Amino acid sequence: MAEKQVGITVPKEKDFSEWYTQVVAKADLADYTLVSGCMVFKPYSYAIWEKIQGLLDNKFREMEVKNAYFPVFIPESLLKKEGEHVEGFSPEVAWVTKAGDTELSEKLAIRPTSETIMYDSFSKWIRSWRDLPLLINQWCNIVRWEFKYPKPFLRTREFLWQEGHTVHETEKEADRQTMRMLEVYKELIEGQLAIAVILGKKSEAEKFAGALYTTTLESLMPDGKCLQMGTSHNLGQNFAKAFGISFLGKDGNSHMPWQTSWGVSTRLIGAVIMAHGDDKGLVLPPNIAPTQIVIIPILFGESRDAVLKKCKELQSSIKKKFSVLVDDRDGYTPGWKFNEWEMKGVPLRIEIGPKDIEKGHAIAVRRDTGEKETIKLEKLKERCTELLAEIQEKLLKNSRKALDDGIEDAKNWKEFLKIIESRKIARAFFCGRKECEARVKEESKGATSRVIPFEAEQGLCVKCGEKGLKTYFGRSY
Amino acid sequence: MAEKQVGITVPKEKDFSEWYTQVVAKADLADYTLVSGCMVFKPYSYAIWEKIQGLLDNKFREMEVKNAYFPVFIPESLLKKEGEHVEGFSPEVAWVTKAGDTELSEKLAIRPTSETIMYDSFSKWIRSWRDLPLLINQWCNIVRWEFKYPKPFLRTREFLWQEGHTVHETEKEADRQTMRMLEVYKELIEGQLAIAVILGKKSEAEKFAGALYTTTLESLMPDGKCLQMGTSHNLGQNFAKAFGISFLGKDGNSHMPWQTSWGVSTRLIGAVIMAHGDDKGLVLPPNIAPTQIVIIPILFGESRDAVLKKCKELQSSIKKKFSVLVDDRDGYTPGWKFNEWEMKGVPLRIEIGPKDIEKGHAIAVRRDTGEKETIKLEKLKERCTELLAEIQEKLLKNSRKALDDGIEDAKNWKEFLKIIESRKIARAFFCGRKECEARVKEESKGATSRVIPFEAEQGLCVKCGEKGLKTYFGRSY
Repeated sequence: MAEKQVGITVPKEKDFSEWYTQVVAKADLADYTLVSGCMVFKPYSYAIWEKIQGLLDNKFREMEVKNAYFPVFIPESLLKKEGEHVEGFSPEVAWVTKAGDTELSEKLAIRPTSETIMYDSFSKWIRSWRDLPLLINQWCNIVRWEFKYPKPFLRTREFLWQEGHTVHETEKEADRQTMRMLEVYKELIEGQLAIAVILGKKSEAEKFAGALYTTTLESLMPDGKCLQMGTSHNLGQNFAKAFGISFLGKDGNSHMPWQTSWGVSTRLIGAVIMAHGDDKGLVLPPNIAPTQIVIIPILFGESRDAVLKKCKELQSSIKKKFSVLVDDRDGYTPGWKFNEWEMKGVPLRIEIGPKDIEKGHAIAVRRDTGEKETIKLEKLKERCTELLAEIQEKLLKNSRKALDDGIEDAKNWKEFLKIIESRKIARAFFCGRKECEARVKEESKGATSRVIPFEAEQGLCVKCGEKGLKTYFGRSY
Repeated sequence: MAEKQVGITVPKEKDFSEWYTQVVAKADLADYTLVSGCMVFKPYSYAIWEKIQGLLDNKFREMEVKNAYFPVFIPESLLKKEGEHVEGFSPEVAWVTKAGDTELSEKLAIRPTSETIMYDSFSKWIRSWRDLPLLINQWCNIVRWEFKYPKPFLRTREFLWQEGHTVHETEKEADRQTMRMLEVYKELIEGQLAIAVILGKKSEAEKFAGALYTTTLESLMPDGKCLQMGTSHNLGQNFAKAFGISFLGKDGNSHMPWQTSWGVSTRLIGAVIMAHGDDKGLVLPPNIAPTQIVIIPILFGESRDAVLKKCKELQSSIKKKFSVLVDDRDGYTPGWKFNEWEMKGVPLRIEIGPKDIEKGHAIAVRRDTGEKETIKLEKLKERCTELLAEIQEKLLKNSRKALDDGIEDAKNWKEFLKIIESRKIARAFFCGRKECEARVKEESKGATSRVIPFEAEQGLCVKCGEKGLKTYFGRSY
């Protein structure tokens, strides 16, 4: 335990990458393994993931999206059925070629995403308009064998996600589903994770392999890199065509349906760490914190038992409303415990000693601002409710400000390069063409279009001068 | 939809295997895929799995077992670290040898179980007695490349499970944990899935590869085959030794800890289908039924709207207590709907027509017995509670009777063979030796020891005449 007591040794401002690595380790979030690029989700980060799962599952239930589970293996022939799709994913596919001592007759991909394995089933399940819309979600592990340097939660060869897949009668319904999911994700990411995002479409170069169009939620991290937080794709009829999905319409004729897919992953945990953390460690938004309140008894002398008893009483009185923990461990000083729970980002700390009990109050300390206040015990539940709501709101406000401050308009190519070099998002007109984007990327050393807002303003492309739309560019994770 | 309307075409008694296949398909539980031996968990079976997950997760929380997630990949060198373990699993391992176009320098196993990848981490996490007990659980997919004929839920190359892994200071604590989990599983399987089980230990030949001893819960399926429902292993210090796990004790010295692991899988869904299903399809125990009550409006003529309204009202009045659905689909007759929900095993059906409303009552029909009764609407909630409890109890009672009836004592080898041939469990004294068990298996065409009850009676081995314990033998899944 001694190692953990040592705080973060480098300021977030000074060496962001090292700061991130230390938070991940010292807040007990993840661990490296002997498999290069694969990590352990330790209980604390997994609990955050379970919170996110719970929030989304509630939403899915409301929307009548059903959870299911499809095989992790995709035969090569199936993966190849949609041309653009396989081209996009095959460089990163992990292949099973052997079972026991037997060579397989066809190699099997570990799913990099499940369109192909699911839609082969959908083609059997869907017969008539009565079977539509089909609304399926899957929580699972995903493997993409990237060769870039791995980073816990942000770039790992295996990660966890949910992938929703829907089938509709009409293009309009698929459009609506795509946009509705983008709104669900926005509510999750801004409303619960307290991270401000820009909504819009992806360019042709950046869209999902095989999609008609991709919508995205993009945020800016403190190191000036953009992070794609989630995507929702209208797949058009591309996969329906490739997989032979058709349905008998109300008109008695056979039709090809329209499809969407959408997902968010454990990458969101990385975003939370980066967006809110500070030099003392993790800072968790109350809505997704596994522990929202930690009560620290200040124990000494004869008052010990009375203080502990009071802490347990207070815990009981608020535990229906909050996830609250009493840290009654022996052998650790209150100061040590303060540091530990600050490192773990618990939104609110309550301190109670014998003098506080005499006076009928407790001390509350906010993790985000460090502000202390004295709360009358009879007001504790009420005040904690307010404080947690304030913290949640403040974190989003901070995130929104950071995002707004991180965007600059580029009127010409020189300004564009300067903005990118200063680690900000450059907002500029862009023609949207793949070839032009390739040039932008090369000449700016890695900047790509991140998002084209809905109803974007029109103007001439900052790079080629053709007609274009106001687009956000940045380097990205 | 037309296909589903057709009921099961073969009696359970007559062709159990075909009956099972039909229930799986017609109750919309699972689907086959192009990957041999891998199946789709369709929403209905996945919802049952989520029920089981919820029940166990509650239990884990009480016990302070924490969920986490470890990589799906295990490097060959790691898998080989514990000798017996690798020997047990390597014939069934699926190997990743390639990523994109690159051959991997070391091949990676898809986890057949996670002892090796977890314990490599545990060896870093555990430093002193303060870190113990370590109580970790993981919900994940598992791959075992069996070459036997696949059967949905029961034998598939990929399945879902939970695997718990704990580390303790003393042998006694590990013993206690092993037994405690066996009790948790018993409460799940008898109390919630309503399937009677025999508890005890596995023989040397049948125990988990690498364990000190394995405890098991064994049931008997209607085709006379035994099904292992879950296992809980005391791993002793075998893995601690292989993975170099040690801790600084309270005495200031370094010690080797004791470990356990335990798991249940989606195989339990197969057990539920087999144990309770009948010639009309699936029969679900109320405690794990995704839909416990279905309300069918009897709609005709002018009373339509009033009946539908009444059904929705009733649903609202009981939906806090039960998961209840109103089947208000147009274009299907009540009779068609009765068949559909019987096929899907919904425990209780409520029928309401205009005459019922006039009389202020509804008709309830039990799925398990088919018994009908008239219930006053004001008593509906109360009576549904009773009926569901009765169904739950009755299913377990039936299962217990089937298990008891399926066991016969074998006083000698001739009787033993006769009992096995009659597709029952043979209870006989057994010496426990591997060589003797191999002979039993060969000469009986496949019978193996399934479970040695705790505190088993002593006597002379039915095969070799050496000292032994009363043991249950049978063919198995």
